[in-house]
Amino acid sequence: MDIYRFLLSGSGGQGVISTAILLADAGLHEGHHAVQLQSYGPEARGGATRSDVIISDGPIYFPKVEQPNYLVALTNQAMNKYLPLIRPGGMFLYDSDLVQPDLKVDAVRKGLPMFRTVREKLQKTVAYNICVLGVLVRLTGVVSFASIEPVLAKRFEAAHHESNLKALRLGAEMAASAMEA
Amino acid sequence: MDIYRFLLSGSGGQGVISTAILLADAGLHEGHHAVQLQSYGPEARGGATRSDVIISDGPIYFPKVEQPNYLVALTNQAMNKYLPLIRPGGMFLYDSDLVQPDLKVDAVRKGLPMFRTVREKLQKTVAYNICVLGVLVRLTGVVSFASIEPVLAKRFEAAHHESNLKALRLGAEMAASAMEA
Repeated sequence: MDIYRFLLSGSGGQGVISTAILLADAGLHEGHHAVQLQSYGPEARGGATRSDVIISDGPIYFPKVEQPNYLVALTNQAMNKYLPLIRPGGMFLYDSDLVQPDLKVDAVRKGLPMFRTVREKLQKTVAYNICVLGVLVRLTGVVSFASIEPVLAKRFEAAHHESNLKALRLGAEMAASAMEA
Repeated sequence: MDIYRFLLSGSGGQGVISTAILLADAGLHEGHHAVQLQSYGPEARGGATRSDVIISDGPIYFPKVEQPNYLVALTNQAMNKYLPLIRPGGMFLYDSDLVQPDLKVDAVRKGLPMFRTVREKLQKTVAYNICVLGVLVRLTGVVSFASIEPVLAKRFEAAHHESNLKALRLGAEMAASAMEA
């Protein structure tokens, strides 16, 4: 595998940090090296949440993502802040109901109505971030779904496992439809 | 403030990552810069969990902790792996029922029976890692308790808030007794 650099961003309640931890942990399950970083600065108060993930076959000496290959933004504020950092030709995944991507950058854009779809199909939005993870994993192929399931089982209470799996699969289906389109 | 470098370590189910996130987030609440990092390598599978936290007044350019001022170890495996990294004169906090600190290093040792005390006083151990956070905050003074409470309220469901606060206060009391001793 190559080195995969992710920057996941959104607002406080959207579960971005949890998504990042799950992604990095799934990378570990596949025998890769992975780091997951949150940076908090005074400018982050009340603003965009950011978490960086790097997954690689070799040791990772600098764990911060300065130019993501893969950027996720779940709010306009996060998009405005982080889209300018994307590596030319990188992939930008956003929630098409929550983000209006009007910045001009050299990136592949994938906008999907993830929040709305989770609410409609699962009748609750607590697993929104797991759906985002499902989309991301399916679009990038960085880890297999078989590696996500044990990580979900380990990090969440058993009562949430079934709805997490539904949200994960929903994300994968949305990504598959978007790739065919 | 100076720069505070923490390395928190233990085994998978002990909540080390959550403790690290709470600590870094409390640092942010006080207007500091903070980073929180997990590193996963193939050697970490089934082994020691590690999370790094740096809290500083200025920007943090390298987010990995190579020599912690403050090391927490909740298992012997974690202690064996990370105690050799401690900065000379640094503080080593460990669970005195779970860890036998037989390595010779230049460090201030604080061993407290945190797990046992949480089980005895709170009748459940789910908030063990919050008790560890309470000890760490009281021993180091890096953030105030007033900064931890809103972070706990933000990151956990309301049903857990009261028992989290009890565990936090229990940790603070244990640390205060240890400092008087």
